[in-house]
Parts: sequence; C-alpha cells; structure tokens
Amino acid sequence: MAFAPEGLVLISVDDHIIEPPDLFDAHLPERFKADAPRIVRRDDGADVWRFGEVEVPNVALNAVAGRPKEEYGVEPQSLEEIRPGCFIVDERVKDMNACGVLSSMNFPSFPGFAARLFAVEDEEFGLALVRAYNDWHIDEWCGAHPGRFIPMALPVIWDAEKCADEVRRVADKGCHSLSFTENPAALGYPSFHDPYWDPLWTAVCDTDTVLSIHLGSSGQLSFPAPDSPPDVMITLQPMNIQSAAADLLWSRVLKEFPAIRIALSEGSTGWVPYFLERVDRTYDMHHRWTGQDFGDRMPSDVFREHFLTCFISDHTGVYLRNQIGIDNISWECDYPHSDSAWPDAPEELAQLMGEAGVTEVEAAKITHENAMRWYSFDPFAHVPREQATVGALRDAAAGHDVSIRAMSNREKLTAAQVQARWQNMGQGGAGTGAERAS
Amino acid sequence: MAFAPEGLVLISVDDHIIEPPDLFDAHLPERFKADAPRIVRRDDGADVWRFGEVEVPNVALNAVAGRPKEEYGVEPQSLEEIRPGCFIVDERVKDMNACGVLSSMNFPSFPGFAARLFAVEDEEFGLALVRAYNDWHIDEWCGAHPGRFIPMALPVIWDAEKCADEVRRVADKGCHSLSFTENPAALGYPSFHDPYWDPLWTAVCDTDTVLSIHLGSSGQLSFPAPDSPPDVMITLQPMNIQSAAADLLWSRVLKEFPAIRIALSEGSTGWVPYFLERVDRTYDMHHRWTGQDFGDRMPSDVFREHFLTCFISDHTGVYLRNQIGIDNISWECDYPHSDSAWPDAPEELAQLMGEAGVTEVEAAKITHENAMRWYSFDPFAHVPREQATVGALRDAAAGHDVSIRAMSNREKLTAAQVQARWQNMGQGGAGTGAERAS
Repeated sequence: MAFAPEGLVLISVDDHIIEPPDLFDAHLPERFKADAPRIVRRDDGADVWRFGEVEVPNVALNAVAGRPKEEYGVEPQSLEEIRPGCFIVDERVKDMNACGVLSSMNFPSFPGFAARLFAVEDEEFGLALVRAYNDWHIDEWCGAHPGRFIPMALPVIWDAEKCADEVRRVADKGCHSLSFTENPAALGYPSFHDPYWDPLWTAVCDTDTVLSIHLGSSGQLSFPAPDSPPDVMITLQPMNIQSAAADLLWSRVLKEFPAIRIALSEGSTGWVPYFLERVDRTYDMHHRWTGQDFGDRMPSDVFREHFLTCFISDHTGVYLRNQIGIDNISWECDYPHSDSAWPDAPEELAQLMGEAGVTEVEAAKITHENAMRWYSFDPFAHVPREQATVGALRDAAAGHDVSIRAMSNREKLTAAQVQARWQNMGQGGAGTGAERAS
Repeated sequence: MAFAPEGLVLISVDDHIIEPPDLFDAHLPERFKADAPRIVRRDDGADVWRFGEVEVPNVALNAVAGRPKEEYGVEPQSLEEIRPGCFIVDERVKDMNACGVLSSMNFPSFPGFAARLFAVEDEEFGLALVRAYNDWHIDEWCGAHPGRFIPMALPVIWDAEKCADEVRRVADKGCHSLSFTENPAALGYPSFHDPYWDPLWTAVCDTDTVLSIHLGSSGQLSFPAPDSPPDVMITLQPMNIQSAAADLLWSRVLKEFPAIRIALSEGSTGWVPYFLERVDRTYDMHHRWTGQDFGDRMPSDVFREHFLTCFISDHTGVYLRNQIGIDNISWECDYPHSDSAWPDAPEELAQLMGEAGVTEVEAAKITHENAMRWYSFDPFAHVPREQATVGALRDAAAGHDVSIRAMSNREKLTAAQVQARWQNMGQGGAGTGAERAS
C-alpha cells in the first residue's frame, strides 16, 4: 500500500545528544565539580569537552542535521555551528516536531556509547559522573517533555556489580534501556563469555532493561588499512555490528539469561536475512563438534527472541522483513548525524515502505509498536494519539526554522587533511573520539 | 522453474587442494630441495608440512568431504584419514564426477592463500618455491585433465614487480587467475591504496587475469574475543570479505586500472544486496566531502563491472540475484571443506534455484557461463557438452566410492580442547594455519 507520511506515528530508537555545557551543574556532588569534564573553546574555534588530559571534539559528521551535503566533514565544530536542537531539549522537541517524530531514544556523544571516558582511576568519581549524567538525562532531558523521550542510562562499564546497581537505580525512575558496548573485550574488560558480567545480566533481566548496543561502541572502527579512504569505514560501519550479534547469539548469556534482550542500535537490517541463514547453516553443519545446543529451536529463532534491529533507510531489510521477523524491526531517525534524512525522514520512510509492499499492520510495528513493547514505553500516556502523528506534530512545529543555524565560517579541510584526521580518529578509537590535549 | 540436478552443467570457482608429498619433486631447482617444505608424520599421528621452524597441520575441517558431521572438528589429520581426492588429481576428478562437477578452481592449503609461507629471507628461494608450486599446479594438476580445472597461480606476495613477472609467465601457459590477499596491509605489505602494487595491477589487466581473493587470505579471522566460541568465527567468515570489497571499491585501483577484475572467493552473496545499497547511499551522502568521483556511475555499477561473487548454498543471494547482478554470481562446491554439500551439491543447488524462481538462462550463468567468461576458460574445447552435465559425469563415476576412506581412530577433542586449539589458530593467524614446531 502507499503510505501518507503525515499519517505515520514515529518513534525513533536511535538519535544522539550533543551534551550541553551545564550537564553536570545540578547532579554532580560539589566535591567533584572542579575536576568534571567541561566545554572549552580551542584556538581553532572548536568547542571541545576537556577532561584531565583528554579532549573530545564534536566531529562535524555528528551534527550535520540541516546542512547541505557540501558542508559535511570531520572538522571540529563550535556549538554555534550546529543546530540548538542538538543540545537544548526544548529546541530538540521542536526539531522532532518538524520531522514528525513523536518519541526518541538519545545516545550520548562525548562520554562514548559505553561511557568509557568516565572509567577513571578514582572509581568513586567515575561512578559520580555516570550517575550525574543519568540523572541529568532521565530527569532533565527526558523529564522536560514526558512521552517524547525513551530514557536510556549510561553503564558503569568498569564494574559489573556497580553497573547492576545503577541499572536497578534508574529502573526505579522508569528507565529500561542501558547503553552498552558491542564488545567489552575490545575495551579491555572481560568478554561477553565471562561470568564476570552475570550480575549485570541478572539486573537487566530483573528490571526488563534492554541492552542497547550502538555500532562503534567497542571503540573499534573498520579500517582495513591506515590509508583506506573514509568511505570504506562509512560503508562498513553498520555491517560490523553483526560481529556483536554473532558473539552474543552463540554465547552462554542467552542460554542462561533467557529474559535478556538486546537492541542493535544503528545496526541496520539489510544484513540480517543472510546472517540468520548463515547461523542456521552453521548450526546444522557444526553443532555436533562445537557443542552448541539450542534444544528444538534454531539460532534464527533464538535471535528473534532476543534481538531488536533498526534501520534508517534500508530497502533490502524492509523488503525481506519477514526473513528478519516483523516484530524485530524498528525505525530510527539518527538525528543529528549525517546518515539522517531529517527533516524529510517521514517522506523517505513512507516511500520505502510503500515500495516494499509493507501492510498497515506491519508499518505500525516498524514505526512505533515494536519500540514501545521493547522499551516498556508508552508515549500515549502523555500525548493523545491524535496529536502523535507526523501531520499533527508538524502542525505544532509550524514556523520552526529547519534551515541550518549558521554556516561554517571555517575553511573546509583539504582531502589530505580529511585523510589525516580520519586516520587519527581510527587510531584514537572513535568510541569517544577522544584525543590527547595538545 | 524446477531444475533436474542431472541436467545442470557445474563449474565450481572455489575448491581446495591438500598438497601431496611430491609437490616439489619435479619443479624445484635441485639446490633448494633440501630446504623445501616437506610432509612429516608427527608423534600424534598427524601429517604436517614442515618448513624450517614452522609446522602447518592439515586441520580436519579442511578435508571433511564424505565424513559424518559428528566427525567434523579441528584435529590435525594424516593423509590416510582424508579422501585421496584431496591430494591425488585422478581421484579428485572421480570425486568431481561423483558430484557432477565439470570444472573446478583449486585454492592452495599449506602455503596460505597468498603464499605468505614462501616469503622467506632468501627471496630467490621463495621465488623458486612459488614458481615450482605454480608449475606443479598448472602443468601437473590441471594439465592431467584438460578442461577439468581452471588454473590459478600463487602470488609473489613480497614483491609487486616479481609478482607481475610471474603473472605474465603463467599467463603464457593459459593461467588467468591469481590467488591474492584480501588485505596486503594486514600481512605487513603496502595497502591496496599504495602505488607500490601498480606493476601488478598493470600485469593482471594486460593478461586478463582475475585477482581471486579468498576469504581469510589476510590471515585474520573474526574473533570478537579470545574466548568467543568457534561458531562465531564460522558465522562471520563469509561476511568479512565485504571489508576487502569496500576497501577496493573505494580505492584508486579501480579508477586507474579500469580493466581490473576481482573474484570474492568463498565470499558468499547474501550480504551483497545490502552492501550495494549501502555504498550507493554512502556515495550520495558523503562524496562531496570525501572527494570520491565515479562520474555518471554509482558505486554499485562500478562493483558490477569489477567483482565476481560466488556462493555455496545461499538462499538470500540467489533470491535477490537481480539486486546483485545476474552476471556477477557464480557457484562453488568448496570441496573438501566443511561447508561443502559434496557429493549432493547438485541436488542442493537445483532445489535452491527452483525455490528462488531462477530462470534457465539465469541458471546457466550462475552454474557455468559466468565462471567461463570471467576466467577466460572453455571446458567445452576438451569435454563435449553432452558429456559435461551432472548426469553424464555421474554416469562416468559409476561405482566410485563416495563414503569416507577411513574413520578417524583418534579420540575426539573435548570442548575445552576445541576451544584451546581454536584460540591458538586465531592468534597464529589462520591464513596458513602455521604453528611453531614444538
């Protein structure tokens, strides 16, 4: 069927916050404030988070919403150069309205998806930073507009027990999503296969909390070679989360914690049908000597019980939705990153679903129902259904300026500079994008 | 349409040789013979190739054709424990007949796909080993049964100029395939992006030689963590060659050497539709700042000009064959590896193509025509068409025993031993499977 964009109800399971300067003001104990991360303006005009010896710039690709594509790049930016919707919640909601997005789950930027920036020597300080971030995010950012944000907590990545405690603490505030890493071993912690993490798995199962694993959250990017062009990494980015999916699918975690649920955030869906075919064939050919045992189920069945996938604009995945599982696919906007079609995402999605022959029942699952069920989230408790559609939200945003806030006044990097910076990102690990302060 | 397996004509673009003990007898100059690699029987009963300090065992997964799946594993084996078709060419042809395979391209085993075992300090010695291997392979193995083998050369991986010379030398003997690495940078050589390789690219273009890049040929396997189960690596294996495809597709190589052609051997096809969708979107969103320029073509067009894909048993890829390109898909048997359905591969393939609605014209391309065109190979110059079908070849093999030659008389490894051995493979690099002699 053909879909009218205005009639859709959209929940995006992957968007991003560029953290504001006052992040730690209200929630960090006074004794830690002097040493907390803070935004400073560098001589080159970029606003960066400085934390001890480390600087985390805000890479332009992470906040290009509204820019012409000619202005994409990897230059650091100042807050004046990006949309205020990146870091001011009231402005964010206006930008969501302009794109017809009812609700959104927001991943962190400068701490890294697994908050490994906060894994400092003074563990008490690190824990205070995680808690302050989570309180700010849940109480202030999400709390400012009930029904508009799916709250998500940062993990205590260096301590499974304390991480479990934090999951329980935020669950009491209604938060059922934990940003986690696609590969703890790559960060220097015990792997998914180590019983070390069992207290955390127990906590997420007890509290109905989804492990939201964002691509790139291992701090590893796919650079086949140091001089590979940036396009290679951009191409491979959403395909490498299959490594995390395989690592978890074959692990003891799913067998011993049957209630655990995982979202492959920004992981895309186009690779999933072949992945499921491959795991079933692997099981059929090899389980007799590898010792895998899923009882009377196949690995693809197990995947569908435990994994939520999502896509921005993915013809292959939507076309093959029944090979993936219609209850396992959700949509994301990816605001304000460069893969996002904001503010025209509803038009792109409606066309894509129409071309793929999606039914109305299937569309409801993809656009919002799967996200609601998965994340124990009910926006309609706060926003009446008739005010929740793309059309109604856009009406509410009438007059809101969706052009960019300010054009960059800096020179574009040369191709050689792009390459040099890119290599630096690859070597530094883009999970946080941290650099040593010069 | 429904396909009768007996009517198919099958050319397999990926099978494997387990090299025989007399490999170097006829073709290596006398002065190098004392130091050449040789097969020795270890105390544990395994036949291994010993070369200086290095031992390369023949891992059981690499030669399980005919075995019940309970006997798969990673134990080293003796030659008596594997089918003689693995290493004796007349027996190989009988095994091909029993499976109805007209022609086959055979990758090496103990030297590694890129022959990096021969990259020794004495470069003259190394070059002599490469040449001796190639002469043995082309003249003896392939030469014994004209029309039954697509000849393929090993590269001089440590020297682009000498590699170019070798490509020209073997092309004069009718060899138009070069086994190469998916990532030279991972082996410690200049990357695909370095002009260092230009003499080789010139030579393969001049001689109409296909770069046949086998998965795993970078010596890197996908182990998310040291304690990931073996199933994880098996799952991810055919999906990681997308990294090589991306690295080459965005490189200057394809732009500056428009005649270059690459086969993604054992790379599978199920991931390709999404990959092509992804590269086109990447181009659309990012080329203005990354500087990529394909003129009036899209990256997916460029892929179809340069890349041949292949599959063993891949429903997703065959179903989406028109998203991949019907002229870019070929079939492989993978004898005698564990992913192969030998000797029942024709039945598996016929059923798969029937279910996917493949037409007769499409089936001819997939089963043999694409392989013939791609590798400048014409089996019908030697084997009349009416003797080339699965049915005719199987008739010729009547009475040939397709059961296993001998059951293993060794204890199966325990799960812990499997895991330990697996980790050792991962750390040692499975490109050759080389171990230090104990």
